[in-house]
Amino acid sequence: MPEHRESWEIKAQKCRDILSASLKQEWLLPHDKLPSPDELDVSGFIKKSNALSDDELKITESSATELITRMRTGELTALATVTAFLKRAHIGHQLLNFATEFLTQEALARAAELDKIFLSTGKLVGPLHGLPISLKEHIGLKDRITNATYVALIDNITTDDALLVRLLKTAGAIPIVRTNGPQSLMHVDCHNPIYGATLNPYHRRLTPGGSSGGEGASIGFRCAVMGVGTDIGGSVRVPAGFCGVYGLRTTALRNPYKGVVLPGQGQESIRCVISPLANSIEDINLFQSAVLDQEPWEEETSLTPLPWRTVGPYKPQDIRVGIMWDDGLTRPHPPVRRALQHAAGRLQEAGVDVVDWEPYAHDLGMDMITDLYFPDAAQTQLELLHAGGEPIEPLTTNSFSWARPEAITVRENWDLNVRRDTYREEYHRLMKERGVDFILCPVNVGVATELGKGRNIPYTAIWNILDQPAVSIPTGLKLDPEIDMVEPDYTCRSAAEEYEYKRYVPELFANAPIGLQVVGKHYRDEETVMAAALIASLVQVQSD
Amino acid sequence: MPEHRESWEIKAQKCRDILSASLKQEWLLPHDKLPSPDELDVSGFIKKSNALSDDELKITESSATELITRMRTGELTALATVTAFLKRAHIGHQLLNFATEFLTQEALARAAELDKIFLSTGKLVGPLHGLPISLKEHIGLKDRITNATYVALIDNITTDDALLVRLLKTAGAIPIVRTNGPQSLMHVDCHNPIYGATLNPYHRRLTPGGSSGGEGASIGFRCAVMGVGTDIGGSVRVPAGFCGVYGLRTTALRNPYKGVVLPGQGQESIRCVISPLANSIEDINLFQSAVLDQEPWEEETSLTPLPWRTVGPYKPQDIRVGIMWDDGLTRPHPPVRRALQHAAGRLQEAGVDVVDWEPYAHDLGMDMITDLYFPDAAQTQLELLHAGGEPIEPLTTNSFSWARPEAITVRENWDLNVRRDTYREEYHRLMKERGVDFILCPVNVGVATELGKGRNIPYTAIWNILDQPAVSIPTGLKLDPEIDMVEPDYTCRSAAEEYEYKRYVPELFANAPIGLQVVGKHYRDEETVMAAALIASLVQVQSD
Repeated sequence: MPEHRESWEIKAQKCRDILSASLKQEWLLPHDKLPSPDELDVSGFIKKSNALSDDELKITESSATELITRMRTGELTALATVTAFLKRAHIGHQLLNFATEFLTQEALARAAELDKIFLSTGKLVGPLHGLPISLKEHIGLKDRITNATYVALIDNITTDDALLVRLLKTAGAIPIVRTNGPQSLMHVDCHNPIYGATLNPYHRRLTPGGSSGGEGASIGFRCAVMGVGTDIGGSVRVPAGFCGVYGLRTTALRNPYKGVVLPGQGQESIRCVISPLANSIEDINLFQSAVLDQEPWEEETSLTPLPWRTVGPYKPQDIRVGIMWDDGLTRPHPPVRRALQHAAGRLQEAGVDVVDWEPYAHDLGMDMITDLYFPDAAQTQLELLHAGGEPIEPLTTNSFSWARPEAITVRENWDLNVRRDTYREEYHRLMKERGVDFILCPVNVGVATELGKGRNIPYTAIWNILDQPAVSIPTGLKLDPEIDMVEPDYTCRSAAEEYEYKRYVPELFANAPIGLQVVGKHYRDEETVMAAALIASLVQVQSD
Repeated sequence: MPEHRESWEIKAQKCRDILSASLKQEWLLPHDKLPSPDELDVSGFIKKSNALSDDELKITESSATELITRMRTGELTALATVTAFLKRAHIGHQLLNFATEFLTQEALARAAELDKIFLSTGKLVGPLHGLPISLKEHIGLKDRITNATYVALIDNITTDDALLVRLLKTAGAIPIVRTNGPQSLMHVDCHNPIYGATLNPYHRRLTPGGSSGGEGASIGFRCAVMGVGTDIGGSVRVPAGFCGVYGLRTTALRNPYKGVVLPGQGQESIRCVISPLANSIEDINLFQSAVLDQEPWEEETSLTPLPWRTVGPYKPQDIRVGIMWDDGLTRPHPPVRRALQHAAGRLQEAGVDVVDWEPYAHDLGMDMITDLYFPDAAQTQLELLHAGGEPIEPLTTNSFSWARPEAITVRENWDLNVRRDTYREEYHRLMKERGVDFILCPVNVGVATELGKGRNIPYTAIWNILDQPAVSIPTGLKLDPEIDMVEPDYTCRSAAEEYEYKRYVPELFANAPIGLQVVGKHYRDEETVMAAALIASLVQVQSD
């Protein structure tokens, strides 16, 4: 008797086959050279493996800014750069299952083409010349399937590259790999029925976060020099925080969003944004200026016509930072509190004006945003899931449960919009009244979550309802079970907080990186990135 | 037996009493000095009446820019300025019924205060120092009723000035009168059960337009030097066009909207904008810079943080203008076609690059916007009308009939948003492809409509769905029944067009001013105003 397979599995297999076929076999390590599954922290594996040459290692551990400098002098080729990252990404995928499709052939061809142009003109084609980037899967690519984790969308062949991808390519960037996300793209985890789970490079029993979890793993393992994710509740910042890298959430309507495949297009009450992850804050700035210098609002006219301004660099005495120790809803886990204390101390020592930030009505903010994520009671998503036939995962059910049981009416949506705008104005006024330019706060209640356990996003989603720019920064600190012990007598304020409190068992998270989040004012994206640069430079400890 | 009055009438009387009490009796003309009701064109009455001194006449016929220049030298006081306009406005109200409430006492007190400040400091308080302005009634004023034409809202005492009013006051402007609008604020007419009908100063059997019809009459009769209206389908531009003045519709989210009272707040698919009317395009520019220089986005954070840029002035060879002779839906009446021909000739003579503008899918655009005006099937408005108990007027029923019979769902709204954005992008692309910087087109199918007859708004509302800035400009031309004769053999393309065709009887509109509309690209508000300045200067004929 033939093995029985559900029809959704047959469809999903098509995508898995595309992924398999996109791998270059010679760049894969034989199974016996791979670390055992018990080896949890694989962040240092690539060095030990000798799979990459010293040159390749150096390339993949450089920032985009460094690579461009070397390419400008002709010392480094795009082909060598792309090859090095692709090789590393292949091994990264073997360890972390972060990719949905490699773009090896086109990437190598484009790199060779760029090298030829450089040879004949002596010039780089643009500010991102030859830089290998990874792209979250639901960012549309011409003539490829873009499924956004839904089996029902496996028939969706995108007819054009997303606008951001076109601009990145024009600037010289080379997409080398597409990356995984969680079912529905609404978990801070990274598992779906098509591609399975992506793992955290620092701890393979933990998630890289989500929904841009594949991007977190990609940039965390340095499979690409920059990555592109999307964020409607923390989906760039959480993976960045969990994987020890930088991740930006811009103010809405700054970066071009056209061509991202996400059910529920036209929902404008809470806008999803598309934005970069990188290992250096300079690279985030480079990415943003490369994109916005091309005036994407001339094509996607709903965007705000604001170029990426040059601001700073800031000196410590230029800024006042409010530390938000607790959002009033969910007490951060001990390692996060330690990182905040460490940061506050470092900032004060350096001469930054540091004050406490008293959160304002985060409970109301979270109520609004959870009402607005699925105003149709997630019918749009559920219809797709039923059409696809794949199992609905518990974390998907968890996210959908944020919605009201029945679709809200257009008028209820209007009321929520009004309340949202009032909340935004009140928060902005408070920051001005208190003279606080930037807020430093957790990215998440804790470090990277155990697989399948991440349920709550109050520290990131609040900035989505507020539409304030925010950057996750790595502190270089890691969770230490000897130091970051459970607070035994803490009394939880809610069931959600109790869930987060109880799941904290320090030993489960040993060595997970600790990120923090720098938040700025609405539309002050450039200032926020430059503040993150200063804060990161003062706060970071050398990672071992 | 006591006279029977409906309870809504008793409530409405409260507002009428406030209006009556706000009038300064000594500034009203006795009835026997007023023109007979048969005297239709009262635009020249003020001169003939001798009610104003020569100085007062000169003041009220100056532009804001001229007044400010005189006030800066100390030659003119704010008190004299405000007094002159208030006196003229009182007579204007007797002739046109345009006001809902005079603000005489505060205006005079503020003017005296500004004069005192000027005397002691030698400086104007701001760029609008001492300028008398009129405000459409539904723009909230502190501690006053703001009813937005609804009897049910007569209990609504606004607790603060609308943000724009606060900024105008800070800049030195002095609100002297609030002005009338049509029931529901969704007609291009100006009648409601509380205040009755406002009339057109050029022809008192015609409407001043709407919904900012009171503003059209106010600025058309020079009752204030600048006025403020709102526009979601032409509500500033139509009254400006009908009353022979300038009226701007900005791109959405530029001017501060907070504090405008309009049922359905939070509806964001088609945003209502608030913007100025004036007798000079320089004044429109002055108004805009005075407002946006105050960075209203620091309070109303949903606004786009774009200051009002200085552009131009343009020379004829700087711009390419596309003339839209017909939108493909409703053929303009003969006087409007004549004005377009006149304008095209003048522009070409001056060296402007003039081409024909082929409209793109205006039928689809109009379908979308009519779906989006009342997505809840106008339940929000109907509930208010039922609560108030006032009669629902035929033009209100006409506007509500644009809506689908049942409320649309949130998901249907999303689909409309997506289609709207696509349409906007396509239109923008076409303008770029054709190298057309500005479109010159009708404001309306014809000149000012007979009272109660204005039903269609395709020439203005299309720029609302497209969110493109547009300015009504007066041509100085007037309708001439001898020239602007009916086209006898025209075959109408639709019932709506037939309605507009049949109602055109040239004799009914003799001497009505003919306006045109200058339209620019999304967010190119400054360029559009400066193009309107150039085009008006080339096109305008001296009015008799």
